[in-house]
Amino acid sequence: MSKDPLVIFTPSGKRGTFPLGTPILTAARQLGVDLDSVCGGRGICSRCQITPSYGEFPKHGVTVEKDALNAWNAVEERYKSKRGLIEGRRLGCQATVQGDIVIDVPPESQVHKQVVRKRAETRDITLNPSTKLFYVSVQEPDMHDPSGDMERLIAALRADWDLPELEFDFSVLPLLQPALRKGQWKVTVAVHLGDDVVAPRIVHIWPEFYEGTIYGMAVDLGSTTIAAHLCDLQTGAVVASSGVMNPQIRYGEDLMSRVSYSMMNDNGAQEMTNAVRAGMDTLFAQIATEAGIEPALIMDAVFVCNPVMHHLFLGIDPFELGQAPFALATSDAISTRAQNIDLSNIHPAARIYLLPCIAGHVGADAAAVALSEAPHLSDDLVLVVDVGTNAEILLGNRQRVLACSSPTGPAFEGAQISSGQRAAPGAIERVEIDPITKAPRFRVIGSDLWSDDPEFATETLSSGITGICGSGIIEMVAEMRIAGIVDGPGLIGSPEQTGTDRCFLDGRTYSYLVYDGSADGGPKITVTNRDIREIQMAKAALYSGARLLMDKFGVDTMDRIVLAGAFGAHISPKHAMVLGMIPDCQLSRVTSAGNAAGTGARIALLNTQARSEIEQVVQNIDKIETAIEPRFQEHFVNASAIPNAVEKFPILAGHVTLPTATFNTGDAAGPTTRRRRRRG
Amino acid sequence: MSKDPLVIFTPSGKRGTFPLGTPILTAARQLGVDLDSVCGGRGICSRCQITPSYGEFPKHGVTVEKDALNAWNAVEERYKSKRGLIEGRRLGCQATVQGDIVIDVPPESQVHKQVVRKRAETRDITLNPSTKLFYVSVQEPDMHDPSGDMERLIAALRADWDLPELEFDFSVLPLLQPALRKGQWKVTVAVHLGDDVVAPRIVHIWPEFYEGTIYGMAVDLGSTTIAAHLCDLQTGAVVASSGVMNPQIRYGEDLMSRVSYSMMNDNGAQEMTNAVRAGMDTLFAQIATEAGIEPALIMDAVFVCNPVMHHLFLGIDPFELGQAPFALATSDAISTRAQNIDLSNIHPAARIYLLPCIAGHVGADAAAVALSEAPHLSDDLVLVVDVGTNAEILLGNRQRVLACSSPTGPAFEGAQISSGQRAAPGAIERVEIDPITKAPRFRVIGSDLWSDDPEFATETLSSGITGICGSGIIEMVAEMRIAGIVDGPGLIGSPEQTGTDRCFLDGRTYSYLVYDGSADGGPKITVTNRDIREIQMAKAALYSGARLLMDKFGVDTMDRIVLAGAFGAHISPKHAMVLGMIPDCQLSRVTSAGNAAGTGARIALLNTQARSEIEQVVQNIDKIETAIEPRFQEHFVNASAIPNAVEKFPILAGHVTLPTATFNTGDAAGPTTRRRRRRG
Repeated sequence: MSKDPLVIFTPSGKRGTFPLGTPILTAARQLGVDLDSVCGGRGICSRCQITPSYGEFPKHGVTVEKDALNAWNAVEERYKSKRGLIEGRRLGCQATVQGDIVIDVPPESQVHKQVVRKRAETRDITLNPSTKLFYVSVQEPDMHDPSGDMERLIAALRADWDLPELEFDFSVLPLLQPALRKGQWKVTVAVHLGDDVVAPRIVHIWPEFYEGTIYGMAVDLGSTTIAAHLCDLQTGAVVASSGVMNPQIRYGEDLMSRVSYSMMNDNGAQEMTNAVRAGMDTLFAQIATEAGIEPALIMDAVFVCNPVMHHLFLGIDPFELGQAPFALATSDAISTRAQNIDLSNIHPAARIYLLPCIAGHVGADAAAVALSEAPHLSDDLVLVVDVGTNAEILLGNRQRVLACSSPTGPAFEGAQISSGQRAAPGAIERVEIDPITKAPRFRVIGSDLWSDDPEFATETLSSGITGICGSGIIEMVAEMRIAGIVDGPGLIGSPEQTGTDRCFLDGRTYSYLVYDGSADGGPKITVTNRDIREIQMAKAALYSGARLLMDKFGVDTMDRIVLAGAFGAHISPKHAMVLGMIPDCQLSRVTSAGNAAGTGARIALLNTQARSEIEQVVQNIDKIETAIEPRFQEHFVNASAIPNAVEKFPILAGHVTLPTATFNTGDAAGPTTRRRRRRG
Repeated sequence: MSKDPLVIFTPSGKRGTFPLGTPILTAARQLGVDLDSVCGGRGICSRCQITPSYGEFPKHGVTVEKDALNAWNAVEERYKSKRGLIEGRRLGCQATVQGDIVIDVPPESQVHKQVVRKRAETRDITLNPSTKLFYVSVQEPDMHDPSGDMERLIAALRADWDLPELEFDFSVLPLLQPALRKGQWKVTVAVHLGDDVVAPRIVHIWPEFYEGTIYGMAVDLGSTTIAAHLCDLQTGAVVASSGVMNPQIRYGEDLMSRVSYSMMNDNGAQEMTNAVRAGMDTLFAQIATEAGIEPALIMDAVFVCNPVMHHLFLGIDPFELGQAPFALATSDAISTRAQNIDLSNIHPAARIYLLPCIAGHVGADAAAVALSEAPHLSDDLVLVVDVGTNAEILLGNRQRVLACSSPTGPAFEGAQISSGQRAAPGAIERVEIDPITKAPRFRVIGSDLWSDDPEFATETLSSGITGICGSGIIEMVAEMRIAGIVDGPGLIGSPEQTGTDRCFLDGRTYSYLVYDGSADGGPKITVTNRDIREIQMAKAALYSGARLLMDKFGVDTMDRIVLAGAFGAHISPKHAMVLGMIPDCQLSRVTSAGNAAGTGARIALLNTQARSEIEQVVQNIDKIETAIEPRFQEHFVNASAIPNAVEKFPILAGHVTLPTATFNTGDAAGPTTRRRRRRG
């Protein structure tokens, strides 16, 4: 047969004819097929594995004979015996075209492979990291044509890998000549492919073929905790995860108390900057140890955080964020050297990336949620709520995305609630109140049993029953409302009004007894009317932010709601809706996204194109500052009622019928008074 | 008159019509006239001063009436009373067009002003520094349209100054918000306009209009001394100069002994790197103190040096430079952060620039000489010789430039010469020997009198007569050759052969008595035959390098010779030619360029386009490695004779007739034997 054989790649469908003996890797490159290689076809790295298919392919119009590829060769034998090779696989650089052939490129052999995310409604991550490895053979120096070793290395990288003109990090200089000579002019280099600030450049060099991998860190820098995932930049896999408390906690639990600390103490901001950077450095060391890797193999890091943490981490006094007009020092994404933020447990040439902030109160964490949940790519209208001390709220679809933040306060984290506590074993997390007896049954963290189960007492012996966590208090108040213990305006009724002596006079208002452990030396867990007020304020803040976005969007309903944040994962949609914390929506369309901000950080770490994407998206998001919106106060007052003083919840009404009785006898302070004072 | 008035700028000749009331600065910008401004037309910076001309201009075809500009205004009055204004000058931003007008832009008002160099044969430096100042008014933050202060600053710089998309140095972040508020949203920023490695970016910010200037440092990092000039980046003026000994001296006087030190001592290279960086940092502090400025106002620095110093300064072990093939770790120009080379007495965001190296033995200092002396722009063929321990030699014209280096050794610096010494008061620097009496007369550094002057003894009382410096030994040997004391092969004759008992047997050869101060407790200054040998080897190395380039160029003569280096400035061209140190040439066409390497550093500091130019030029220079050129040895042997065993010096012969007698009686060792050993 005189015609050149046809090579067809799947799943891309790309095809072309190639001379007999052309390596499959070469054919793939010429056709632009996404087939990985670090060693450049030298049979070392094994990343170009392919699966040839034989037989009849009517779809492609070819018949593949048994000898369509060359015979299994010595390089492949050696590789297989040393490191193993899946049956039926060949190395793309060793297999050569001998006849018409169909070649499947398995997912793990693709350069831009997909990193699979667990939830069905979200996109996979396309792997496209900032830093990649390249193996290269460098021309030896020649006195007749003198040039620097670095210049010959860069020329080889350009020739073999079609890379742009490369610069090099200064830290590479002392490594270069020893590596080239130790590797006998063959080296592996890590190349940072450049960003807005710096040109593409060499960041590390190893003699010979470097068999290891390189890593990146995705960090969710929260006010309370810092959580990080160490990812393999070549596979996208999370290889270790860990978290530490934010050491700034000692300067204040919430953000505004930290801003105050900086205002009232000389060098206060600098102290907090030093604290969070030191904590971060410790966390990096901790995760590297856990994963058993050298910290210097961490070559990239992405951070998401709220604006105050953003500024403090970058060494900017957050003073301006504490007062109108809440001016950010910088809102765009930040790319800078890791050394500039005093990170030492990372490669010396590593750059770090902070996602852009959306506005003075809507930070890089909200941008990360937007990147993860992608409302801008949603065909239906989605409300994304990241519930925390500050709620970040996004509403939008392909046409338009709006964002705001709302100061919910710490009630949802169990703080400022009389029996509240952090989510930990012993905390009540699920509640049901019998509408007839008004008696509660509940579950605590650490046990799957309900409290009316005979084994419950035994199972909870070690943890005890210690308090109510954030998701528990939401269910509790909602159940109290359903059972007619709390009325629409938020008053707990008297024993007479509610028909249960679990309601008891507690000062000027009534409280509801959930659990009395005092006989066993345990706590007496109650819900006070003040607790109800705290929850009302928190949920009103959240709802009125969402309602404001709905006003701006010109809608009264949305297609779906995503609850983001670790806490969001534990909220019961029905109870949140009974509370009027989130707008009326089909319960089945209210989902949890888990730590969406952390996921956004991981996406930006693994795919630099996602960085450009979110930078663009953030530009186009309409930012709403709740503090200056006249209707916010009105929405807030309405939303203080449970579920709402004016808004109807027709979908919810199909599931739950709420009692209409009111308990007001004129002697309880309304929540709006206090709210005004807090925001004044 | 309904037609818009005509505005003509001189010296550019640019012209255009503008509506009545147009400020001259605006007209200049629209026409692309090179008129400076830092404050952007706010009447603050005074850099846009112009001189209007009135009356008849037949050449331009206009008549300028007395009222062709608006009346002198309050802003100008205030400026003049506060800081003065030359008679007849106006501020270009305040003077507005009222009729046809001719405007002269004085040199100091041009952005790309010329920095005048002293020598007639060289180009002036066009001012185009890496870092410039811009005054700008920034939009205040707006809650309705949230954006970062930095982003609004960058937007303002783009709008007002037509700058590219700017990044910012990380060190600017903490300064930004206080500066904007202190300056009431008016600030002055220093912008680094970018290079191959980093994007254009803001490097500093001052509240209000910053009245000061910013600086750059041009450094000649030599093996023995480090010399630096502090330059005003806005005017190009040298505001302070200073030098220190290179602290590496303690690891070895010459380069190869430092390379040996690094080979024989663990961390030897690192020690030397630390030493030179510490010395550099000290020098920066010293010059800043001398100039009375904050070191942080130094925003750029350019370094030139030989390859070994280049590597050690950059933290690269120079090991490979000590052996064939003399591979440079990197040859291209280096742009990096000053912090990377541990400089602290400089702005934290400052970048430094090292000129490219030409080859393993031809460094950034040679590139700087090429930039300063510009053989690539010369219509006639020029030989540039930078005389030092290592001589860098360039030969070329517009068509082609060749370069090599030649290891002359330290003899020209007075080392390894029995009565040699560094150039210092008391050192003999000029010599004449009477051809009849064979008696010398001389001058010493520190006095203008010859030694046969009656006042000489008195004038030199304090310094004494202590030895012979480098330029002195050249004259001495050349004069001895002219007077028939030394023959062509380099032997000192006996008293009988020379007719003077100043020649005396000194071991197996003869020496020549220059001066006997022993009666007064001073030294006895002689020239030994071994001294002659040292000079022969040094000058033979230099000449044979030049001769090799002439071979490669295919010429036997050149139009002119430039002697560069501090030492080059003191060499007598006639004596150098008698010695056969430089090729035959019209004496009037042998000039001195002073510290051309230092000048090259200053050019690269003040004009970033010169950096691109020299990077390009270096690429096109043909590098000759003398060590592997077969004819080098032959040239060297021939050049060991004084002036040369085979080459004719016809032009020199028109000035000087050299005796032809030879003193060889067969008992003196020839210099070539030892030379071979040294290079082996």
